[in-house]
Amino acid sequence: MIQLDFNKMGGLLPAIVQDHETGEVLMLAFMNEEAWRHTLKSGKATFYSRTRNSLWIKGDTSGNVQLVKEIRVDCDNDTVLLKVAQVGGAACHTGHRSCFYQKITETGAVEIIGKPVFDPKEVYKE
Amino acid sequence: MIQLDFNKMGGLLPAIVQDHETGEVLMLAFMNEEAWRHTLKSGKATFYSRTRNSLWIKGDTSGNVQLVKEIRVDCDNDTVLLKVAQVGGAACHTGHRSCFYQKITETGAVEIIGKPVFDPKEVYKE
Repeated sequence: MIQLDFNKMGGLLPAIVQDHETGEVLMLAFMNEEAWRHTLKSGKATFYSRTRNSLWIKGDTSGNVQLVKEIRVDCDNDTVLLKVAQVGGAACHTGHRSCFYQKITETGAVEIIGKPVFDPKEVYKE
Repeated sequence: MIQLDFNKMGGLLPAIVQDHETGEVLMLAFMNEEAWRHTLKSGKATFYSRTRNSLWIKGDTSGNVQLVKEIRVDCDNDTVLLKVAQVGGAACHTGHRSCFYQKITETGAVEIIGKPVFDPKEVYKE
């Protein structure tokens, strides 16, 4: 069993989430050891929420869970890459498919890529 | 000009590096504000080395620089995604194309994906 290095960031490490079919990078979040174990056991991408200070099963509120198809770990065991099937078609709480919808143009301006695929107000009942 | 949030991690934020053509995730590193500005100005992926405590122009030693083709920023401005052309064909100091060459199998074992494309001893003159 691989031993991940949670020490560099005080118990956390970054986890990149990528669409397993298209290769699109959907989001980045952090895992503690509990989140890592829960991901392995459940097959659902699970993180540690730094703002809520609690385990965060992605999609628990919205229904947009991420089914883990493949797990990769980097050369020094301090970063995880999850290849997932994104239920609901969008990973971002804004309704965008990917959280990385802001493109920086050559002048340094921000260009929004794509449109939300769901209405956050509807999904999260704000 | 976008304002990135360097505060959540004490002056750093994670930067994901992806091959701009294949979509393969090559590595993850951290940027401070100086690294971010250097990346924008030079067009070469530049990070902050947590082990050396200094600016790290990726490929400065090995020659395997990363030419930035596109920059994306996530929904809360605390993570960067660089789409790059990887000079020399490999991002990892081990000689592997991607740092994420360890696949976790269903039993929890590690399977090495692919072979190094260069010999680290040759490139880094160890």
